[in-house]
Amino acid sequence: MQSPRTHQLVLAHVEGELAAGRLTLGGRLPGERALAEQLGISRPSVREAIRALEVLGVVRTATGSGPEAGAVIVADPAAGLGLALRLHVATSGVSVGDVVQLRLLLESWAVREAAQHPDETVLADAAALLDRMDAEPDPDRFLDLDGDFHAGLVGLAGNVLITAVMTSVRGAVRSYVGAGAARLPDWSATAARLRAEHRRIYDAVREGRADDAEREVHAHITGYYRDSGIG
Amino acid sequence: MQSPRTHQLVLAHVEGELAAGRLTLGGRLPGERALAEQLGISRPSVREAIRALEVLGVVRTATGSGPEAGAVIVADPAAGLGLALRLHVATSGVSVGDVVQLRLLLESWAVREAAQHPDETVLADAAALLDRMDAEPDPDRFLDLDGDFHAGLVGLAGNVLITAVMTSVRGAVRSYVGAGAARLPDWSATAARLRAEHRRIYDAVREGRADDAEREVHAHITGYYRDSGIG
Repeated sequence: MQSPRTHQLVLAHVEGELAAGRLTLGGRLPGERALAEQLGISRPSVREAIRALEVLGVVRTATGSGPEAGAVIVADPAAGLGLALRLHVATSGVSVGDVVQLRLLLESWAVREAAQHPDETVLADAAALLDRMDAEPDPDRFLDLDGDFHAGLVGLAGNVLITAVMTSVRGAVRSYVGAGAARLPDWSATAARLRAEHRRIYDAVREGRADDAEREVHAHITGYYRDSGIG
Repeated sequence: MQSPRTHQLVLAHVEGELAAGRLTLGGRLPGERALAEQLGISRPSVREAIRALEVLGVVRTATGSGPEAGAVIVADPAAGLGLALRLHVATSGVSVGDVVQLRLLLESWAVREAAQHPDETVLADAAALLDRMDAEPDPDRFLDLDGDFHAGLVGLAGNVLITAVMTSVRGAVRSYVGAGAARLPDWSATAARLRAEHRRIYDAVREGRADDAEREVHAHITGYYRDSGIG
């Protein structure tokens, strides 16, 4: 393996070009050969750096396009943050308890904000998810709808970064949440409680009751992790 | 460039091995050749994935060690999160205002927690940083000490993930914070105010006044961004 420092030249170069506005969203990086010549490094090092940028959700490379096509600049912060968080939870560098605490903090804030500017379209989508959860007996599919419902409400707060961190955080513990469901003595009783809590959170946001929305979401999240023995 | 999907096999494999406990912190990945054979993919694809894991702060490869030495599993969540955030701020996929809002949220929570379990060693380090800031005329060096002071207090809250996100968030806007300082009409007046605010935050944490700590840190952060025209 080459020196670990070489690919960092590419990362620093791309960061500088973005910061200077010479590279922008939707624009393309130079091809591999051009970048390698410009920075005086090998093409494999360029390729490794571009792959790292891809994993971070900063560029996209099209399958089948050649190495000289140039990667396209995209903005997918949730991709990079999500992968980083999942891996760090997996190494136990970060505990599930720490993740739950961050989720609680972000989501309490977000529903409070959401209650201050509820949006009819987003709320209609959220209501449709509530109806689908009413009809969903399978825990795993229920938890996916549940995640979409929470992400929709957090999105209402209008902070792209906080939405990305919150969905990443939830993704990082999704497998634990699912395993927790399997440990519950009575899923249908838990599901009934979650459905009622979701309705209360939804009503509080829709009616602009920020304090209630915050309190309900806090109780909802801590209750689930407590009952399912996670964190 | 090869299919973008091949390296993802390596990422998924490593994530699975970590989750199953077969790979742990301080342990080593198999060498490049072994991984390539095991997963039925090319060695360059393995190398790209390992580089991505390195950028995310999940493995470390030693300079000069051969490709068969195997990367060591480490836990440096702030590295991956920090780079991802800096790049997404640079693409404008995430606004500086969004970053400031997240910082405010995390740091208000953290000083409130810190006030509930102040630690003498950490507080002594924080006090030393305050003294060094008193004696530091250079804005850039002042802002670095300032960052260390805030990180120390946030660390007291005891959540590794929130500390990593907060330091990443601050790192992502560090260049804007520095540029903001240069725009201020009178740095020495601002520095005097920041010093006084830091002392008030420090005293509130040390004396266990959680509400005061939270209010002071909120005013401190919003004040600086407002006065320097950032976000």
